[in-house]
Amino acid sequence: MTTLEQDIVSMAIRAKKAARSLVTLSTEAKNQALLQMAETINSKRDFIQAENEKDLLNGKEKGLSAAMLDRLELSDKVIDSMMAGLREVAQLPDPVGEVEKMVKRPNGLLVGRMRIPLGVIGMIYESRPNVTVDAAALCLKAGNAIVLRGGSEAIHSNMALASVLQDSLVSQGIAADSVQVIPVTDRAAVNSMLAQEEYIDLIIPRGGEGLIRFVSETSRIPVLKHYKGVCHIYVDRDADLEKATPILLNSKAQRPGVCNALEGVLLHKDIAEGYLPVFVKAMKKAGVKLLGCSESVKIVPDMTPAMESDWGTEFLNLTLCVKVVSDMDEAFAYIDTYGSQHTENIITENYSNAQRFIAEVDASAVMVNASTRFNDGGELGLGTEIGISTTKLHAYGPMGLEELTTRKFIVYGQGQIRG
Amino acid sequence: MTTLEQDIVSMAIRAKKAARSLVTLSTEAKNQALLQMAETINSKRDFIQAENEKDLLNGKEKGLSAAMLDRLELSDKVIDSMMAGLREVAQLPDPVGEVEKMVKRPNGLLVGRMRIPLGVIGMIYESRPNVTVDAAALCLKAGNAIVLRGGSEAIHSNMALASVLQDSLVSQGIAADSVQVIPVTDRAAVNSMLAQEEYIDLIIPRGGEGLIRFVSETSRIPVLKHYKGVCHIYVDRDADLEKATPILLNSKAQRPGVCNALEGVLLHKDIAEGYLPVFVKAMKKAGVKLLGCSESVKIVPDMTPAMESDWGTEFLNLTLCVKVVSDMDEAFAYIDTYGSQHTENIITENYSNAQRFIAEVDASAVMVNASTRFNDGGELGLGTEIGISTTKLHAYGPMGLEELTTRKFIVYGQGQIRG
Repeated sequence: MTTLEQDIVSMAIRAKKAARSLVTLSTEAKNQALLQMAETINSKRDFIQAENEKDLLNGKEKGLSAAMLDRLELSDKVIDSMMAGLREVAQLPDPVGEVEKMVKRPNGLLVGRMRIPLGVIGMIYESRPNVTVDAAALCLKAGNAIVLRGGSEAIHSNMALASVLQDSLVSQGIAADSVQVIPVTDRAAVNSMLAQEEYIDLIIPRGGEGLIRFVSETSRIPVLKHYKGVCHIYVDRDADLEKATPILLNSKAQRPGVCNALEGVLLHKDIAEGYLPVFVKAMKKAGVKLLGCSESVKIVPDMTPAMESDWGTEFLNLTLCVKVVSDMDEAFAYIDTYGSQHTENIITENYSNAQRFIAEVDASAVMVNASTRFNDGGELGLGTEIGISTTKLHAYGPMGLEELTTRKFIVYGQGQIRG
Repeated sequence: MTTLEQDIVSMAIRAKKAARSLVTLSTEAKNQALLQMAETINSKRDFIQAENEKDLLNGKEKGLSAAMLDRLELSDKVIDSMMAGLREVAQLPDPVGEVEKMVKRPNGLLVGRMRIPLGVIGMIYESRPNVTVDAAALCLKAGNAIVLRGGSEAIHSNMALASVLQDSLVSQGIAADSVQVIPVTDRAAVNSMLAQEEYIDLIIPRGGEGLIRFVSETSRIPVLKHYKGVCHIYVDRDADLEKATPILLNSKAQRPGVCNALEGVLLHKDIAEGYLPVFVKAMKKAGVKLLGCSESVKIVPDMTPAMESDWGTEFLNLTLCVKVVSDMDEAFAYIDTYGSQHTENIITENYSNAQRFIAEVDASAVMVNASTRFNDGGELGLGTEIGISTTKLHAYGPMGLEELTTRKFIVYGQGQIRG
């Protein structure tokens, strides 16, 4: 084993040990620690920003883009929002120890399922250092230890935040090893982390598709991931078009760079001729570039013809594909082929079509008459989220506190034996 | 790609396609197919038993043990129980489409989580051919397709059962590819199967620890597994010893060869002197061989001293370890070190100790005053089970129909957009 590997193993072992102590930590103690973290971040603002400045200077030297530097910066506003996030998580109900119901078996055994922490979460992420705080807060509240491995460009910021979080934990009598940042940012550290299946229970990668593929192909530990968000809206023949336009605009243009933004619109053929001109006008006004199928280009020639490679692309900018479909089955087939199991919506006033869409479409969130932007932990009522899973095992869709736990069976008996 | 790999890919692709059609299959259609399977197994009993006879003859030639041959045999009794199992699964409620509750968000969105099938399940198992039928039944009811890979010693039996199940599916208008048995039993077939992460959503291995380790180390697909069941009972100082003896006997001796059988007893030191002689006498009467710690051997010399390697061993026979502990914390530390996160029980009349044990012990089932043998899908109220998971992601403990599904978010809106 190299020294690096030894260090990672040692961190993982310490995380496991810390996780054990978190299982029985009271909700009050966890909440106090979260509030203390917000306080300490505030009082150590200068230190955090000075360390962040080192990352920003390195980034400028390395020629990082303005967008990258923007994500990296721990401005007062970002720090305030990290503090608000910590206080918000302190307010959320603690899932640990919850038993939804107990059933009484014919032999008198009382059987239930109790929520318990998963154990140790490994988080692998890219530039944004605020993920360090957001992820640590959610993991702590759900009773898990966390081992974080951020990007090289944010290493000073991440180490500074980790030391502040650990100080807060220690001041509340909680094991510092509950939150650890790996101080090494090369790929060997990731490889070594992904081999600690004995100590780390779950890996959550956040970043580009390349990182996520690498992690899921390398990891011996289960991975919860989403590769990309290629979201669609199907505008049904029976759509209320007064609702359609604001929903389509909001889905595409409110924040085009995120995973729940709209990438493709499917229009029923019977409304295409009437609605396309209205739709194109509204989109163009919002600065959206439209790529149309041959049918739609026939109706509104003022659109770029889409190429095969455009279908299913996650543009993450103001580009949008438009396709005319002859019925809902064609819409389903399109979504099946080009969707990413993230968010799929229908606009319709037709009851049966709405119910069929909800039942049959395979995506982490399926919606009727609403913006795709609602596929978000906060908006769906989870409080906040640590990511969105587009694979089905354990969690499908936004992952909140509950998804950072599991359930064990608990049984209260009075001396029962099996016959 | 070799021809074998091509065949496996083709089976996986067909399974995925079949799975798609199962999503919208009605409960009634699934139940009819299950009942038809029972009918067809009955009417093809001679064919199934003739094929099974080939496996039994091969097994005898290869010198399989009597126990192995016994597991392999599709006697009338085993066939009857397969048929009963199919009818039982037909009776169970269909989890698909279930929405436990919907919440109304402040903006009026109605948000719920709907149960949906996982997709394609890959099952890798050893000798017992009845697993083919049991697993297929559960997967079909939960709306999943299944690809089965049984052991070489049962290949004729498995292929015969697969053909009978497929005939039943087709007679009910359901895709035959919903249930497929891989006709090749060498390891290359397993390797190839475990690489189909694009088409297979979950792997469930059932068999010895070696098989399970191999599968979980090789698979690119998520694996739900349990390595072994090393179950303990802690007899507290405040135990009702009238309850303790029958529970201990039932846990150890009712069926010693299974994963929820007892392997270790922890006795509080204050009751050891009084209770050990009673306990030893009862166990010896049941033919149990006891391996004791130095403390317990001092009290009852008529016991074999345990060696370090005995602690944490899954004996699967009438051997049982006994250890005197000074308090519950020592019991917890022992369970942490030697347990397998399967089943851990306490016998006590002390309210606080019972609650602490339930809350703090990490195992898929934690029980008070009951036999360890109750950690079983049927006994815990799941109807029936496809296995017991001792890892925490997705499922922890017995896996029934619900564990063969996942939940997607569904949202009913009235034109909402995000602000």
